[in-house]
Order: sequence, then C-alpha cells, then structure tokens
Amino acid sequence: MVRTNPERRNTLIDAAIEVLARDGARGLTFRAVDKEAAVPAGTASNYFPNRDELLVQAGHRFYERLQPSKETMDHLFTGPRTRETIAELMAETVARVSGFRTGYLALLELRLEATRRPGLQAILTERVRADIDANVRNHLESGLPGDADAVLLLYLALNWLIVERLTLPGIFGDDEAARLIRAAVERVIPAL
Amino acid sequence: MVRTNPERRNTLIDAAIEVLARDGARGLTFRAVDKEAAVPAGTASNYFPNRDELLVQAGHRFYERLQPSKETMDHLFTGPRTRETIAELMAETVARVSGFRTGYLALLELRLEATRRPGLQAILTERVRADIDANVRNHLESGLPGDADAVLLLYLALNWLIVERLTLPGIFGDDEAARLIRAAVERVIPAL
Repeated sequence: MVRTNPERRNTLIDAAIEVLARDGARGLTFRAVDKEAAVPAGTASNYFPNRDELLVQAGHRFYERLQPSKETMDHLFTGPRTRETIAELMAETVARVSGFRTGYLALLELRLEATRRPGLQAILTERVRADIDANVRNHLESGLPGDADAVLLLYLALNWLIVERLTLPGIFGDDEAARLIRAAVERVIPAL
Repeated sequence: MVRTNPERRNTLIDAAIEVLARDGARGLTFRAVDKEAAVPAGTASNYFPNRDELLVQAGHRFYERLQPSKETMDHLFTGPRTRETIAELMAETVARVSGFRTGYLALLELRLEATRRPGLQAILTERVRADIDANVRNHLESGLPGDADAVLLLYLALNWLIVERLTLPGIFGDDEAARLIRAAVERVIPAL
C-alpha cells in the first residue's frame, strides 16, 4: 500500500513544515500539503488520519532533521574539556538550527497552535522535555565544564537568540550573535 | 469624527491583540476585530486604513500596556544596589509580561507574520531595538551591578523562559522558573 511508503511519508511531512512556516498553522490543510509536495490531491489524506496527526509528525520531524552530525557528537565527547569547546559546540548548534529556518518557524507555529490544542501541547511538551533532558545528560556525561543549570540557561538564551535572528534579523547581526553566544557560555560556566 | 476617539481606538487595538492570540495572524480581519470588540461591523475599518496598520498598532500597544509600574521603576533606581534587587526586578518583569498572556502570544504571531511582511518587520525591529536599548540604558544608569552584556543575556534567557511558560507550561513549573530566573541573574552578573 502506498500509505506505508516511508520516503513519501517524510516528503509529505517536510511539505507540511514548509506550509506551516509560510502560511502559519491556519494555512495547514491536506490540500496545501499535497500542492507543496507536488503529489496528486488526496495523497496526504491517505497517509494521515487527520490534520492534528500531521502537526504532531511535523514536530517530531523537526527534531529528527536537526540531529547533530557525528563530527559534532565526537567533538562533544572527545574535544578538549574546556569552555572553548562548549562555545564552539553552541555556535555550531545555533547555526544548525537557524539553518533549518522553515523548521524552526514551523515549530514556533506549532507552539502557538499548542495553546489552542491540549493534545498537541501534551505531545510537544513530551518531545521538548526529552530534548532538554538529552542535552543535560549528554553534557554531564561529556565531562565538559558546566552543570545542569548551565545547560538550561544556554538552552533559554540561545533559543531566543535564534527567534530574534529568524524573525527580526536586524536586531543582532552575525558578529553580535557570535559574541553573545561566547558571552553566554563564559558567564553561565564560571572559569575554573 | 468617531475615528478620532482614542479610547475606542485602543479598544479596537486591544481586540486585535485578543484575535491574534486566539486565531493567529491569518485570523485577524476587520470583521473579527469588530466582533471581538462588540462594536458595529465596519468600525475597525473606519479607524485603520488597512490590516497592516492594525498589526503595527497591536505591536506598539503591547509595549504600551507592559510599561513597568512606578513602584518597579522606583525599585530599579532606589532599591539596594545588589544582585538581589536585580533578581527581584527580573522576577517581576517575567510575571508582568507572562501575565499579559494574550499580548505576548500576539507579539509572537506578529514576529512570525513579520517574516512574510518586510514593512512589519522593519517597524517591529525598530520597536524591539528601542526596548532593548532602554533596558540597557536604564540598567547602566541605575548603578546596579552588571554590564550591558548582562542585560542582553537576561533579555535572551527570560524571553524564552516566557515562551516556554506560555506555550508549553509543563516544561518549567513555577518553582523551577523562579529558580532559573535567580540562577540566570547570579551567573550573568558575577559576584563582586
């Protein structure tokens, strides 16, 4: 059956992300997704039982597509155990997330839609919680300087930096953003 | 002329904020605003030349309604010159901004809409820049500990904390949020 083709399923979810970023949650319809994916009308409705399921899958797909590369994970676990390594990793993370511009904007749309849909809110909460916990765990296991609160504070500051860069790019330019990432790392992780 | 009645004008802009928060930018129409404000159909279109102007005014109104109280400003300038005072001010700010829940959600909708409308983006950039500059200036003039970067880092971290609290309130509960605000202040402003 066509509806079990995982590649086509991902194509549809990726199309949903583009629609969310461009037209907002209200613009997300099966018809818009079919059109964006350039597939015959009715395809998306064969793969997803309803619009809510498509929203949820778009949220999961965002995290799937943003998994750090093997190089980044190696650097996390084998680079010098210094704040400098953390600053490099944070700059890489901000660049990677910002680089998937439509994905991040779609996730913001999903967060706003979650204020209206308790089911979506519950699922997104679980996904974000898992992401934060993994960040904290990886950091603590890496033996890099900085405790759990340092990870949480970097999570907070860098997420809003990404919001600012993607929605109002005139606020913090490239150099200022790079400087703020470094300052955040140096302040939340006291020198040894 | 009715259209110069400033009180009714603000009522319409406040209604636009509620519509933005509830239905998203795509749901913002003159008709929806008239309905939300419980005024005769056609009223909003007498006050605003187009929908873009209503979006812009909603952005300005957010900042207008969130001006700190006289007590807060007094505390900023006359409270003990310690990190403790800053932690109190930050907790008050997060509570004040989060308390205007629909206003903050509307502003996020405006930021997302700004990615699609260069004119709105330019105006919001100016408004946000003025807000950040005022925060930095007030802080430096207050003589409280902490430099301009400390203000910027608190701005970043606390904005995302508010996003998290308003969109996925299960991530950080009341106690955890209070603890993170304190930790942010203590880390970005080194002890003397």
